[in-house]
Amino acid sequence: MDLSVLFFQIVAIIIALLAFGEAFWLYKWVVSRPSSNPRISEVGKLIQNGAKTFLSKEYKVLTRFCGIAAVIILILLPSPIWDGNPYNNILMSLSYLFGTIFSGIAGKIGITIATIANIKSAEASTKGIKPSFMAGFRGGAVMGMAVVGSSLLGVTLVLLLTNNTTALLGFSFGASSLALFAKAGGGIFTKTADISADLVGKVELGIPEDDPRNPAVIADNVGDNVGDVAGMGADLFDSNVASMAAALVMAVSLDRVKGGSLNASMVFCYAAIGLLASIIGVATARMGKNGSPTKALNSSTYVTTVIFAILTAVATYAFHFEWRIWIASAIGLSVGVIIGIASDYFTDDSKKPVHMVAKASESGPAFTILSGISYGFMSCLPAMAGIAVSALAAYKVCEPLGDGYAMFGISMAAVGMLSIVGMIISNDAYGPIVDNARGLVEMGNLGDEALEITDSLDSAGNTVKAITKGFAIGAAGLTVIALLGAFISEVNNAAIELGKETITGFDIMNPVVFFGLLIGAAIPAVFSAMLMLGVERNAQRMVAEIHRQFKEIIGLKEGKEGVIPEYDKCIEIATDGSLKELIPAGLFAIVTTLLVGFIGGVQAIGGFLTGNIVSGLLLALFMSNSGGLWDNTKKYVESGHHGGKGSDTHKSAVVGDTVGDPFKDTAGPSINTQITVVSLVASLMSTLFLTMSLFG
Amino acid sequence: MDLSVLFFQIVAIIIALLAFGEAFWLYKWVVSRPSSNPRISEVGKLIQNGAKTFLSKEYKVLTRFCGIAAVIILILLPSPIWDGNPYNNILMSLSYLFGTIFSGIAGKIGITIATIANIKSAEASTKGIKPSFMAGFRGGAVMGMAVVGSSLLGVTLVLLLTNNTTALLGFSFGASSLALFAKAGGGIFTKTADISADLVGKVELGIPEDDPRNPAVIADNVGDNVGDVAGMGADLFDSNVASMAAALVMAVSLDRVKGGSLNASMVFCYAAIGLLASIIGVATARMGKNGSPTKALNSSTYVTTVIFAILTAVATYAFHFEWRIWIASAIGLSVGVIIGIASDYFTDDSKKPVHMVAKASESGPAFTILSGISYGFMSCLPAMAGIAVSALAAYKVCEPLGDGYAMFGISMAAVGMLSIVGMIISNDAYGPIVDNARGLVEMGNLGDEALEITDSLDSAGNTVKAITKGFAIGAAGLTVIALLGAFISEVNNAAIELGKETITGFDIMNPVVFFGLLIGAAIPAVFSAMLMLGVERNAQRMVAEIHRQFKEIIGLKEGKEGVIPEYDKCIEIATDGSLKELIPAGLFAIVTTLLVGFIGGVQAIGGFLTGNIVSGLLLALFMSNSGGLWDNTKKYVESGHHGGKGSDTHKSAVVGDTVGDPFKDTAGPSINTQITVVSLVASLMSTLFLTMSLFG
Repeated sequence: MDLSVLFFQIVAIIIALLAFGEAFWLYKWVVSRPSSNPRISEVGKLIQNGAKTFLSKEYKVLTRFCGIAAVIILILLPSPIWDGNPYNNILMSLSYLFGTIFSGIAGKIGITIATIANIKSAEASTKGIKPSFMAGFRGGAVMGMAVVGSSLLGVTLVLLLTNNTTALLGFSFGASSLALFAKAGGGIFTKTADISADLVGKVELGIPEDDPRNPAVIADNVGDNVGDVAGMGADLFDSNVASMAAALVMAVSLDRVKGGSLNASMVFCYAAIGLLASIIGVATARMGKNGSPTKALNSSTYVTTVIFAILTAVATYAFHFEWRIWIASAIGLSVGVIIGIASDYFTDDSKKPVHMVAKASESGPAFTILSGISYGFMSCLPAMAGIAVSALAAYKVCEPLGDGYAMFGISMAAVGMLSIVGMIISNDAYGPIVDNARGLVEMGNLGDEALEITDSLDSAGNTVKAITKGFAIGAAGLTVIALLGAFISEVNNAAIELGKETITGFDIMNPVVFFGLLIGAAIPAVFSAMLMLGVERNAQRMVAEIHRQFKEIIGLKEGKEGVIPEYDKCIEIATDGSLKELIPAGLFAIVTTLLVGFIGGVQAIGGFLTGNIVSGLLLALFMSNSGGLWDNTKKYVESGHHGGKGSDTHKSAVVGDTVGDPFKDTAGPSINTQITVVSLVASLMSTLFLTMSLFG
Repeated sequence: MDLSVLFFQIVAIIIALLAFGEAFWLYKWVVSRPSSNPRISEVGKLIQNGAKTFLSKEYKVLTRFCGIAAVIILILLPSPIWDGNPYNNILMSLSYLFGTIFSGIAGKIGITIATIANIKSAEASTKGIKPSFMAGFRGGAVMGMAVVGSSLLGVTLVLLLTNNTTALLGFSFGASSLALFAKAGGGIFTKTADISADLVGKVELGIPEDDPRNPAVIADNVGDNVGDVAGMGADLFDSNVASMAAALVMAVSLDRVKGGSLNASMVFCYAAIGLLASIIGVATARMGKNGSPTKALNSSTYVTTVIFAILTAVATYAFHFEWRIWIASAIGLSVGVIIGIASDYFTDDSKKPVHMVAKASESGPAFTILSGISYGFMSCLPAMAGIAVSALAAYKVCEPLGDGYAMFGISMAAVGMLSIVGMIISNDAYGPIVDNARGLVEMGNLGDEALEITDSLDSAGNTVKAITKGFAIGAAGLTVIALLGAFISEVNNAAIELGKETITGFDIMNPVVFFGLLIGAAIPAVFSAMLMLGVERNAQRMVAEIHRQFKEIIGLKEGKEGVIPEYDKCIEIATDGSLKELIPAGLFAIVTTLLVGFIGGVQAIGGFLTGNIVSGLLLALFMSNSGGLWDNTKKYVESGHHGGKGSDTHKSAVVGDTVGDPFKDTAGPSINTQITVVSLVASLMSTLFLTMSLFG
C-alpha cells in the first residue's frame, strides 16, 4: 500500500469521525429538548422498552447465527483451511464479525435516538411546526451520520489493516447478514403488529387506531422503529458497504496492473466527500418561514447533491483522477434523482395513478387491487430503464480508459448514487419518528393544533419516503451489477492461484448460464412469498393473543381505570415470530445459491446472479411502488375524495392498503438485501465453485 | 432439397390431411347429435351470432393490420427491397400472410364447432353423462385437430415451396400476429363481459349468474368461446409453429454443414408422429363405466404421450436418426408432464394452497389476495426449474453430436413437449364448451340431474385446464429459448452475407447486453398492466351501457314477458373495446424491441429477448397460477367450506376470483404470445439491427 491511498484513507477516517461528532452533537441537542408531559413519557417509555426487547432478542439470535457463520467461514473461506493459508481464513472470519458488529452498533444507535426523538418531537409540536420538525429531523440525522460514518470507517479500517479485498467482501457479507435479519425480521415484526392491531382493534371492536386498550398498540409503535429505522438503516449500511467494497475490489485490481493507487484513492476520496456533503447538508437543514417540511427535506437533499458534485470535481482536478470516472459517478447521482422522481409519480396523491386507483375503488376492492398491481407493474419500466441507461452510459464513458475500467465505472456510478446516503437515511428515519410523534400527540391529548402539525410532518415523511425508496432500489441495482464485476474479479484471482483458466463473462447461450438464470429469477419471488406468508402466520398468532387478553383481563374491553393490557406479550410474539419466519427464507436463498454453484459452477452462478438481479429489481420496484400507491390512495380517499372515510370506496382502499403493507414494508425492501446476500455468498464461495461442481 | 426430407414432408402432409379428415368426421358426428329444446337453440343461436360478430370485426381489423404489416415486410424484410433480392421480400410477405390466414381459418373452425357442441352437450346431458361428455370432448377435438393439422400443413408447405427458413419465420410471425389479437383481444373481451355482467347483475341487482334479463349475459357466454376457444387455439397454433420453425431453422443450417437432410427430416417425422399420436388419442377417448370425465381426459392424454414416445423411438431406429435427440425430445415431453403436475398442485382444490387461501379469506379479502399472490409466486419455482433443467439436460445430451446440435436439442425438447398439443387443445377447448353447456342447461331448465352432470363435466374441465396451461407455458418457455438460437442463426446468416463478423453468444458482462436485459425484463410487466387496465376501462363502458338499458328499456328489470335486452350492444362494446385496448399494448412491445435493436444492435436484442423470456415466464406462471388458485378457492368455499356461499369468507374469495380473472384469462396467457411476437420481430429484423444501430 503506497502513501497516496493511505492519505485518502486517513481523510476518510477523519471525516467518519467528524460524522460521529456531528451525530453526538445532534444526539445531545435532541436529548436536551424539554419533555414534561407524563402521559407521553410513559407511553414513550413503553415503546423504548419494546424496541429494546426486540433488539436484544434479535441480537441474541444474531450472535448465534453469526457465530456459526463465522466458524464456517473460518473453516472454508476464502479456501478450505487445510488447503490454503490459515491466516487468510482468520482474517476473513474476523472481517465478517467486524461487519456484523459495526452494523449492529449503528442500528442500536438509531433505535435509541428514534425512541427519544419521537417524544421530543411530540412535545415540541405544542410550540409550533419548526421545533417539532427539527427534533424529528435531527433525530433521524443521528441515525444517518452513525450509519454512514461507521460504514466508511469500517471499510477503511478493514482495508487498511488487512490490505486484502476478499476480507472486504467478508466485511460486506457481515453487514448483509445483519441487514437480512434487521430488514426482513423488522419487516415481519412491524406488519405483524400493524395488521393484528387493526384487525382486532379497528375491524372487530371498532376502537380507534392508537387506543391504549389494544394490547398490540405498543407493538405497533415499536414496529415503526424496528422496521423503518433499524431495518432501513441496516439495509442502507449494507448497500453502502457493498458499493464501496465492489468498487474497491476492482480499483485495487486495476491499480495492481497499472501500479500506484490512483483508483483506490479515488474511491476513498469520493466516499469521504459524499459523507462530508451529507454532514454539511444535515447541519444546514433549516425550515423556512412558511414552514414546509417537505421543502426543507428536499432542499437539504439537493444541497448535498450539489456539494458532492462540486467537491468531487475539485478533487478530481486537484488529484488528477480520471474525469471519465467523475462523469460516471455524476451519471449515477443524477439517475438516482430521476428514479426517485419516477417513483414519486406513481405514488404521489396529486398524480394520476393514485387518482385512477381511487376511482377504480368505487367498483370494489378487486378493482383497487387490479389497478394498483397494474400501475405497480408499469412503475418498473422507468426505474429499470434508468438503471439500464446509467449502467450503459457509465460503462461506455469509462471504456476508453482501458481493460476493466468500464466495469469500474459502473461501480463508481453506484458509489455516486449512494454518495448522499447519509442525507437519505436522515430523511428516511425522520418518517417513523414523526409518525410515532403523531401517535404520542394523540395519546397524550395535546390538542388539535399539535395534531395538525404532526400530521403535516408525517405526510412530508411519506412523500420524501417514496423518493428515497426509489433511490435505495436504484442504488442497489447498480451495486449488484458492480458486485457481478467483483464476482468475476474474485473468480479470476482464484483461477490464477489454482492455475485454471480465467473467465471474461457469462454467455447467455451457454445452457449452464441459462439454467442459473431461470432459477435465479425465481428466487426473489419465492423469498418474498415466504416473508409474506410469515407475516400472515405471525399475525394469526398475535390475533389469538389479543383475543385471549380481551377475554381474560377483566375490565380491559370496557376501559376500566387502571386496567392495562399485557403489551409485552404482543411484543414477544412479534419478536419471536419474526425471527422464526425469517430464517427459512434467508436459508432458502443461500442454500439455492450453493446448490446452483455446486451443480453448474461459476458460469451457472453468473446466470443465477443475473436472473436474481433482474427479477429482484422488478419485484422490488413493483411491490414497493404499488404498496406506496395503495397507502396514498387510502389517504387520498380519507381526505374526502370519492365519498371519503367510511364510504364503500374507502373500504376498498383499506383492502389495498392492507395488501400493500407487507408489499412495501416487508417483502419489497427485503429483496434488496436478499440480492446482496446472494451476490456476496457467490463471491466468497468462488474458489469452491471453481474446484467442485458437477457441470462447471 | 433432397429426396429424404421430401419423403417426410409428404408424410407430414398426409397426416395433416388425416387430422382434417378426423376433424371433419367428428364435426359431422357432433352436428348429427339431436337438438330439440327451442329455448336452448334460441340462446345457443344468440351465442353463435355474438361469436360471429366478434370474429368478423376482429378479422376486419386484422386484415387492415396484417395488410399494413405485409407491406412493411415487403419493403423491408429480410433486407430492404432496394438492397437485396426483391423475390425474397415477396416470399417473406406472402409467407407472413399465409401464416395469418392458416391461423385465422383454424380459429374460425374452432369457434364454429364450439358454438354447436355446447348446445349438443347441453341437450345430451338429459340422457346421461357419457353422451354429454362425448359431445363436449369431440367438439373440442375438432378444434384440436384443425389447429395442429393446419400448423403442420402450413409449416411443411412453406418450406417445401420456398426452401427458405427465413420465410418460415415469416409464416410463424403471421401466426403470432394473429395470436396476439386472438389471445389478448379475446382475453379482454371475455373478462370485460364477465366482470360487467357480474358487477351489475349479481352485485347491484342481485339477479342470478346467467339471468337472461342481463344485457351482458350473452356477451359473457360469447366470451368463453372467443377467449378460451379461439384465443387459446391461436396461442397454441403460434407456439406449435414457432417450435417447429425454430427447430427447422437450426436443422437446415446443421444439414447444410453436414450434407444430407437428416435433421430436417427428423423434425418433420417427429412432428408428424406427434399429430398421429393425437389423432389416435382422440379417436380412442372413451369414458369408462364409472363415468369420471377427468379420468377420461387424462387417460387419453397419457395414451397420446406413450404412443408418441414409442413411435418416435421406432422411427429413430428405422431411419437412423440420432438417439440423443430422441432423448432430448423425451425429456421435453416428461418435463411438460411434471410442470403440469406442479401447476395442478398450486391450483387443485384438494391440495394445501387452496385450503390455506380459503382459511386466510376468513380474515378478509386482503388476506385472500396476499396469500394467493404468495402461493402464485411460489408456483414459479418448480416450473422454472423444470424448464431450466430440461434445457440444460437436452443441451448436454446433444452437445457431443457436434457444433450447433446442443441448441438444436433444446428446440427438439420443445417439439417433444408440444408433440401432444393436439390432445392438449382438445382438452382445453372441451372446458368452455361444457361450461357453456352448463349455462344452457340452466337457461333451458333441463332439470337438476342434467345440471349435476354438466357441473361435473365443467369441474373436470377446470382441473384439466390447470395442467394444460402449465404445459403451454412450459412449452412456450422452451420454444423461446429455441427461438433465441434461431435468432443467432439468422444474425449469422445475415452477417456472412454482409461480410461482418458472426456472433456466438451474448455476454452478460457486455453492458449493451445488460442494458437490453433490464429493459426486456420490464416489458411483460408493462404489457400485462396495459391489458388489465384495458379490461377495467372497457368494463366501465359496458357497465354504463347495462345501466342505460335497465333504465331505458321498460319492463326489463321486472322481467316482463317478451321484453328482451339489446344483447348485441354489449357484444359490440366488448368487441370494439377489446380491439382498441389491445393495439397499444401490442405496439408497445414491438416498438420497444425496435428501439432497443436500433440503439444497442443485435447484442442488446440478445439481452432484451433473454430478459423478456425470464420475466415473462415468471409473470405468466405467477398470474396463471394465482388466478386458477383464486378461482378454485371460491369454488371450494362455495362447496360448503369455511361458511360456504354467502359467508364473509365467500365474499373475500369472490374478490380473489375477480382479481384472478384478468390475471389468468387476459394478462397471464397473453404474455406467451407477447414473448413469441417479440422474438420473431427480433429475428426478422436481424439484418437491419446488424447494419443500423447506435452502439451495436
